[in-house]
Amino acid sequence: MARNIQSLERAAAMLRLLAGGERRLGLSDIASSLGLAKGTAHGILRTLQQEGFVEQDDASGRYQLGAELLRLGTTYLDVHELRARALVWADDLARSSGESVYLGVLHQQGVLIVHHVFRPDDSRQVLEIGAMQPLHSTALGKVLSAYDPVAHSEALEADRKPFTDRTVCDAAGFEHLLDLTRARGYAADVEETWEGVASIAAPIHDRRRMPVGAVGITGAVERLCPEGELRPELIAAVRDCARAVSRDLGAGRF
Amino acid sequence: MARNIQSLERAAAMLRLLAGGERRLGLSDIASSLGLAKGTAHGILRTLQQEGFVEQDDASGRYQLGAELLRLGTTYLDVHELRARALVWADDLARSSGESVYLGVLHQQGVLIVHHVFRPDDSRQVLEIGAMQPLHSTALGKVLSAYDPVAHSEALEADRKPFTDRTVCDAAGFEHLLDLTRARGYAADVEETWEGVASIAAPIHDRRRMPVGAVGITGAVERLCPEGELRPELIAAVRDCARAVSRDLGAGRF
Repeated sequence: MARNIQSLERAAAMLRLLAGGERRLGLSDIASSLGLAKGTAHGILRTLQQEGFVEQDDASGRYQLGAELLRLGTTYLDVHELRARALVWADDLARSSGESVYLGVLHQQGVLIVHHVFRPDDSRQVLEIGAMQPLHSTALGKVLSAYDPVAHSEALEADRKPFTDRTVCDAAGFEHLLDLTRARGYAADVEETWEGVASIAAPIHDRRRMPVGAVGITGAVERLCPEGELRPELIAAVRDCARAVSRDLGAGRF
Repeated sequence: MARNIQSLERAAAMLRLLAGGERRLGLSDIASSLGLAKGTAHGILRTLQQEGFVEQDDASGRYQLGAELLRLGTTYLDVHELRARALVWADDLARSSGESVYLGVLHQQGVLIVHHVFRPDDSRQVLEIGAMQPLHSTALGKVLSAYDPVAHSEALEADRKPFTDRTVCDAAGFEHLLDLTRARGYAADVEETWEGVASIAAPIHDRRRMPVGAVGITGAVERLCPEGELRPELIAAVRDCARAVSRDLGAGRF
C-alpha cells in the first residue's frame, strides 16, 4: 500500500511540475527535477500518457499536460454546488455593476477562480476560470483569509509578495486589513495586485455558517473609485450578491 | 514498476468513475465498482485527496473530484498551441457570423471542446470548454472523422447513438457523409445532435498538413438554414477561419 501511494505522489508531483514554469519538459529534466531514476520516471510518464493525463510531442519527445485533465476539471465545475448556486446571481451582479465578476474558493495557498462572468461590454476578455489569485492582496483572498481559519493560516505562512507599491505584505498590516474586512463585511483591493485595477469582494456562507467562498467584482480603478473612494452602490451590489448566494446555499437570514 | 503503474491506473479509473454518472460516491461504491478491496481503494483515495484530486464531503463522507483538476486542466489550455493560435480568429468568426464558435480536438472517443466563444448577443449562455461532443453526429466530429484516421476508427468502433430522427448511425451512411465532407472541405450537422440546432465546421491543419482540430459555428436552425439550406456566407466564414488558423500554425497556403 505504501508503495502504491508513493507512485501516486510522484505522478502528482510530475503533473504539478508540468503545470508550472517550463510546461514542456523532456524525460531527463523531469527525472532530475523530482530526484527519480530515469526508468522510474519513464514508467510513471508512460502510464500517465496512456491515461490521457500527459501528452508527448512527436517531434521533440517532450511531455506536457494532457486533455483528460481538462475533461475532469470541467466535471469538477459541474459538481461544484457553490458554483451552480452562484451562476445566476453572478450574471445579475455583472449586469448591475457593469464589471466582471469572479467567484473564488480556497485551494492550496491561493484563491481558485471557479466562475468568471465577463464585463458586459464588447471588449475582448480572457477567461480566468481555473486561474489562481494570491490570498494576501486580492479582495477575494482577503475575504477568505478573514473568514476561513484555514485560509488565514495559509496566508500568514505564505510568502506575501509585493505586486505594487500598495501591496500590504507585513503580518501586522495584513491582520489589520482582515480586522477591517470582518468589521465591514467586505474586502477591497485598490491597486494592491494590479496597477490600475480595483476589486471588491464579500463572503459566501453555507447552511452551517461556514465560509465556503467569496464573490466579487474587478475593474478599472477609474470606474470603481472615481473620487479615490469605492463607489458605495458597487459595495452594496457585491454584498447583496454574496448574501443571495449564501441564502441559496441554505444560510440563515441573520 | 509494474506495481506503480497499477496504482496509477486504478487512480485514473477512480477519477473517471467520479467524473461520470453519480459523481459523489462512498468508499464502498468506489471499491465495488472497480473490483478493489476497501483497504486498497481507501489508500488510493486518501492519496488522491491529499494531492487535491479528490475531495471528501464532511457531512456524508462521500468523495467527489477535487479542485486541483480544475487548476491543472486550465494549465492544459494555456499550453495548447492550437488554442492559443485560434483565439483571435474564433472571436472574429463569432462577430462576423453572429453565432457561437467552438474549437474541438479529438480526445478518447469524442470531440473535446478546447475553446468556446459566446454568441455575441446579451443572452445567458453556458460555457462548454472541457465538454465532449460525439464524433458521428456533430459538424466538429464529422470533420475530425473525415480527416484524422485515428478519429475515423474511433467513430467507426463507437456506439453511434441516434440523438434525433436525423442522426446518421449506420456505417455506410456515415462513410458517405465523410466522403461528402472531404469533397466539400466542411461538415454540417442540421438537427442530427440537438433538435433545432445546426452547426458547420471545417478542418485545421498544422505545418505538417496533419489535421489537428476543427473549428465551427453552432446556432438555431432557423438562422443557419433559413430556407432549408445552410447560408453560403456562413460556410465561407467558417472555412476562412479554419484556413487562417491553419496558416497561423504554419500550414502551407495550398
